[in-house]
Amino acid sequence: MSLEVFVLGTSGMLPLPDRHLTSTIIRRNGQLFLFDCGEGTQVALKKINMHWKKIDYIFISHMHADHVTGLPGLLMLSSQVDRDKPLYIYGPEILNEYINSNRKLLDMFINYEIIFKPVKLGVNLETEEFIINSVPLLHTKPCYGFILREKDRVGEFKVDRAEELGIPKGPLWGKLQKGETINYNGKTFKPEQVLGEKRKGNSFAYITDTMYLSSISNYVKDVDILICEGMFTKDLSEDAYEKKHMTSSQAAKIALDAGAKKLYLTHYSPRYSSYELKKLLNEAREIFTETYLAEDGMYIRIENND
Amino acid sequence: MSLEVFVLGTSGMLPLPDRHLTSTIIRRNGQLFLFDCGEGTQVALKKINMHWKKIDYIFISHMHADHVTGLPGLLMLSSQVDRDKPLYIYGPEILNEYINSNRKLLDMFINYEIIFKPVKLGVNLETEEFIINSVPLLHTKPCYGFILREKDRVGEFKVDRAEELGIPKGPLWGKLQKGETINYNGKTFKPEQVLGEKRKGNSFAYITDTMYLSSISNYVKDVDILICEGMFTKDLSEDAYEKKHMTSSQAAKIALDAGAKKLYLTHYSPRYSSYELKKLLNEAREIFTETYLAEDGMYIRIENND
Repeated sequence: MSLEVFVLGTSGMLPLPDRHLTSTIIRRNGQLFLFDCGEGTQVALKKINMHWKKIDYIFISHMHADHVTGLPGLLMLSSQVDRDKPLYIYGPEILNEYINSNRKLLDMFINYEIIFKPVKLGVNLETEEFIINSVPLLHTKPCYGFILREKDRVGEFKVDRAEELGIPKGPLWGKLQKGETINYNGKTFKPEQVLGEKRKGNSFAYITDTMYLSSISNYVKDVDILICEGMFTKDLSEDAYEKKHMTSSQAAKIALDAGAKKLYLTHYSPRYSSYELKKLLNEAREIFTETYLAEDGMYIRIENND
Repeated sequence: MSLEVFVLGTSGMLPLPDRHLTSTIIRRNGQLFLFDCGEGTQVALKKINMHWKKIDYIFISHMHADHVTGLPGLLMLSSQVDRDKPLYIYGPEILNEYINSNRKLLDMFINYEIIFKPVKLGVNLETEEFIINSVPLLHTKPCYGFILREKDRVGEFKVDRAEELGIPKGPLWGKLQKGETINYNGKTFKPEQVLGEKRKGNSFAYITDTMYLSSISNYVKDVDILICEGMFTKDLSEDAYEKKHMTSSQAAKIALDAGAKKLYLTHYSPRYSSYELKKLLNEAREIFTETYLAEDGMYIRIENND
């Protein structure tokens, strides 16, 4: 199993001709999770040839225009095609009012079910395979980051060991594989006798917009891919503080403290040209070497163990 | 005096990676008039290096998402810069509610005055120099086209004639130039004795979204530049009719009947690639030879008489 990350946009505040607003989509086992939806996200999706109707979940970090105003256009696309499954939208409570108000005022034709879930602290979505938690952030508006962690899976079933132990192929193998202890021929067999090492789940975190909080690193502990705002260079630390945003160095500090595998910076201030972003990168790498610049259209695959 | 037309986008229904949603901006004597503002219009403005804060008037044709959802993002830009004049927004009555609802829900910081005017039939804006009229259209929602007509100006003042007639340079010349009859030295002089031909005003019309109505050509009579939706090829006439849109041939018929100087097609169905738009053009040219395809970023100058 793998997690695939598609970076849709990396701009903060304003969409630019060559930089869409910050947004990322995750693909996992056929499901799509969209994080934020500013003006133009539907165009960014089209650029990577990903169909909006396959999106299962949308998570909105907060109610600033640059993270949410692409939503009505995206929802509106429904009038063009059929969609056979509901769309789950997680966001601040007021997002529901925003959606309903825009639906009403734009008299939107929507031919599928939208299920709104207010973001809450802690677990927001849990299945047998993964958990999505919110990460409390501190911005000029209530704001949440999100972290998707796959649960560890049992190890690989070692056929040769099972055969050596004389356990016959069939339902008993299945039980061992599920982690159950079995009895056969008067003997007791434990799963660990036939299973390899636990397979570690993949994990991904999406953190924007926020001032630096040391607590963030606890939430994103050991994450494989941390996509995190690094809006300003160090010389603008005061601006960052006032606007409740972060420098790239602060993002790097979080990645370091969290023991993240890789940090991808995003939500760049429009003041920086693509060339100037290297300064954000260099400053972050002084603290955390595994830092990269997220770029529009970038594809990242996370695969700990398959 | 000239009218300058900047085509910001030409796509109907959906923004595409290489085609912004239908929108046009007019520059006249230092004033800017924006027509429609779908998702991404702020990016299209940035592409032609035009600053939103210089826009004086916004006209919204109707309340479909592809013509209006760029507005919150555009208004929001105000938090970044100072703007010292009010912004006039003309549109359907419900647009005001849309703006206010989005302002409230997105908690938008707007540091200038927005003056909303519901579009009415007939004259919507009149100054000494020009008139903007609405054009009633027929779409799936209440919809208006707009036509900006400059008033004709008095002819050029002929200095040599005034001198021949013995009228001394000074305030009397000014009166004649303003169209007043004067008395001097016991004689009466009429303005036409010293003025050249009236200088014809420039005109521009913006017509989208609508089914074909023969009445439209009366409203846009003799217009210099007609920007008009031509969404479909003839083979999709039924689709056009059902969706209350037009084929490019119908747009051409309007231009022909109106005696327009030039027709620029816009609001193309996303089904047509840039290459396929030629079919829309060819079909329209069979009816009205002075037809052109509007294109994103296109610049047109109208100058009847300077």
